[in-house]
Amino acid sequence: MKRRTLEEITALDRDDPLREKRSAFEISEDVIYLDGNSLGVLPKAVPALMDTVVTQQWGDSLIRGWSEHGWMDLPSRVGNKIGHLIGAQPGTVIVADSTSVNLFKLLAAALALRPRRKVILSDSGNFPTDLHIAQGLRDLLERNHELKLVEPDKIENAIDKSVAVLMLTEVDYKTGFKHDMARLTGSAHDAGALTLWDLAHSTGAFPVDLTAAKVDFAVGCGYKYLNGGPGAPAFLYIAPEHQNKVMPPLSGWMGHQAPFDFDLEYRPAAGIECMRVGTPPVLSLSALDCALDVYADVDMLDIRQKSVALCELFISEVEARCAELQLASPRNADARGSQVSFRYDYGCSLIKALSVRGVIGDFRPPDIIRFGFTPLYHSYMDVFRAAEILEEAIAQVSLEIK
Amino acid sequence: MKRRTLEEITALDRDDPLREKRSAFEISEDVIYLDGNSLGVLPKAVPALMDTVVTQQWGDSLIRGWSEHGWMDLPSRVGNKIGHLIGAQPGTVIVADSTSVNLFKLLAAALALRPRRKVILSDSGNFPTDLHIAQGLRDLLERNHELKLVEPDKIENAIDKSVAVLMLTEVDYKTGFKHDMARLTGSAHDAGALTLWDLAHSTGAFPVDLTAAKVDFAVGCGYKYLNGGPGAPAFLYIAPEHQNKVMPPLSGWMGHQAPFDFDLEYRPAAGIECMRVGTPPVLSLSALDCALDVYADVDMLDIRQKSVALCELFISEVEARCAELQLASPRNADARGSQVSFRYDYGCSLIKALSVRGVIGDFRPPDIIRFGFTPLYHSYMDVFRAAEILEEAIAQVSLEIK
Repeated sequence: MKRRTLEEITALDRDDPLREKRSAFEISEDVIYLDGNSLGVLPKAVPALMDTVVTQQWGDSLIRGWSEHGWMDLPSRVGNKIGHLIGAQPGTVIVADSTSVNLFKLLAAALALRPRRKVILSDSGNFPTDLHIAQGLRDLLERNHELKLVEPDKIENAIDKSVAVLMLTEVDYKTGFKHDMARLTGSAHDAGALTLWDLAHSTGAFPVDLTAAKVDFAVGCGYKYLNGGPGAPAFLYIAPEHQNKVMPPLSGWMGHQAPFDFDLEYRPAAGIECMRVGTPPVLSLSALDCALDVYADVDMLDIRQKSVALCELFISEVEARCAELQLASPRNADARGSQVSFRYDYGCSLIKALSVRGVIGDFRPPDIIRFGFTPLYHSYMDVFRAAEILEEAIAQVSLEIK
Repeated sequence: MKRRTLEEITALDRDDPLREKRSAFEISEDVIYLDGNSLGVLPKAVPALMDTVVTQQWGDSLIRGWSEHGWMDLPSRVGNKIGHLIGAQPGTVIVADSTSVNLFKLLAAALALRPRRKVILSDSGNFPTDLHIAQGLRDLLERNHELKLVEPDKIENAIDKSVAVLMLTEVDYKTGFKHDMARLTGSAHDAGALTLWDLAHSTGAFPVDLTAAKVDFAVGCGYKYLNGGPGAPAFLYIAPEHQNKVMPPLSGWMGHQAPFDFDLEYRPAAGIECMRVGTPPVLSLSALDCALDVYADVDMLDIRQKSVALCELFISEVEARCAELQLASPRNADARGSQVSFRYDYGCSLIKALSVRGVIGDFRPPDIIRFGFTPLYHSYMDVFRAAEILEEAIAQVSLEIK
């Protein structure tokens, strides 16, 4: 990749169609925050909204808030906002629980649709909690399911007629490697398998089209690119053709057909609503709801274009400056999410040295340093400066390890 | 019960050891809120705390908040605060997920400890979600478990050696009937069964002593008497002797021995921590954490004594004024939680007529009206006035139905 001149970088910022969006966030000028793929920054509208929710909706309305402020509909209302970003039809996404809990629900539901097949196929680049949840479900069910893990690039060849569910995270949290969701979903369907995609590092990071890709089930996270706040609730997706055919394994009262009939016998609600379990977490759901408004007038294609350009600028600058680092992310943008990772033996020290200098990235053992790029609030100049500072930090770490 | 004079009621308020606590809450003088057993009122300290958590902890610290503000320890730190109210030793309670999800975890874990027994015993007064979750787990496991329901007063006789788990809510959400937790737990243990108690209407409402009662497992709710806000996270308890022996069925990364090692293989954390699943919901956990501080200097015996007195005052006033209503709660305070319920064929209309007059109660079909009493913020005069207004509302409803 050819390096950009400072004039070109300035021009990129000037012509950036998303440049006004930065002002929607609380951005400290002392920090370059390349960790929005761990925890998104605070949207400026959230503090006032939270105060309203706490003091007026809860404080004044009390129990009447459930009807007066539409608390009961938050899971589907916020779900539909997210659905808009991931090519999901209205009524196919709800917000509830955590990503891990939602994965459990959908994996159990999917396995029940393929009772004779015993393989859950995933890859070694999946985020550990997805694999842990699958292991726990396998052990709970005691029906001889196998969780089969292969390397990320060996997935397609491993899909066969033994596979019940292909369960993958679209973007590898360490390397940023991005699966071809549509192609792998097609291959899985050809083999009679179902697909369950984790969109933790996809949603809000680039355009996703679950409908076009014919994905069966998906989950995702509210606190990364969606900026919903630490531990924000997660979401889940069920394709229309599977709705009303799946039984929720976590059959709580909020997923009942008529929760306020207080029936002793569970009857699942129609559609996606049956995957609700307990009382919706109104405070954190409201923060996520408000945070999502930033996306209301954003074209996800603009996001993607800028994300690719930010990543490429970073790669070219870092490779020119820091010979010690080895690119761990795909060089080809089509095979990469919105993050760039490098390998470095002293990655943990390097991330600390960067943090002292106001650049926030993540270390992932054993040797990965990763940087997330969030087109809504990063400028090209941020990325250029981060590379400069990375060069300084490496020089310091190199001295220390001598 | 003998009716109190107005002078006596005034004296009760004057001598109330909890009278100062009312000022810790946002209480509208236009409303008598007898629904703190559905959703507790807003503690005055919460809005400022939430603003700090949102703008400073999240907005300024961003990802560093996990270490700088102890977010990672919130589940156990808040759990220990709750543990203090329910006679649980430190390290036996964590806050996570919803009551329903926590019940699923513990019921699955408990059943695995009694693999040869097939009966989950509960009562028809249990809150529906508990029964729904048990039904869903039974169907998921496909191991011929039976969910056996008897009437609340028939539980003791139904305990036998077929019972794997006795699963009860201590206080019946409709009638306020309170089980003898210690005695039933003893009977269950005599039969070789384990116990799983739902403390939704107990925690913060009266003294609970899980240790003395030798309870095995328990769950409870953060948004009723604990005032944690709408949809606040819930908690779960595991007795010390079962810790490190149960396998979490929802085995998420936060319950891993070393989440930040990112192992592909799940290894449960020691102790109660293994029951954590996903990323803790920092915003709602922080609200609950702050709300619990109101209890820091409260003697639960004072709470109970006042709760009984409030309930008795209400019963005596209502029975003297409203012959149409039939007491649905136990008359004996020892068998009653902190609520009073009546039966009335037009209960739904009555609750609406009360609401218009500023008294908030709950209707539970088919004919129950219920009123929760929360000694931290109710005065005796509140209760007296609520009974007066109930008399007026009944007169109106009686006219309308003629």
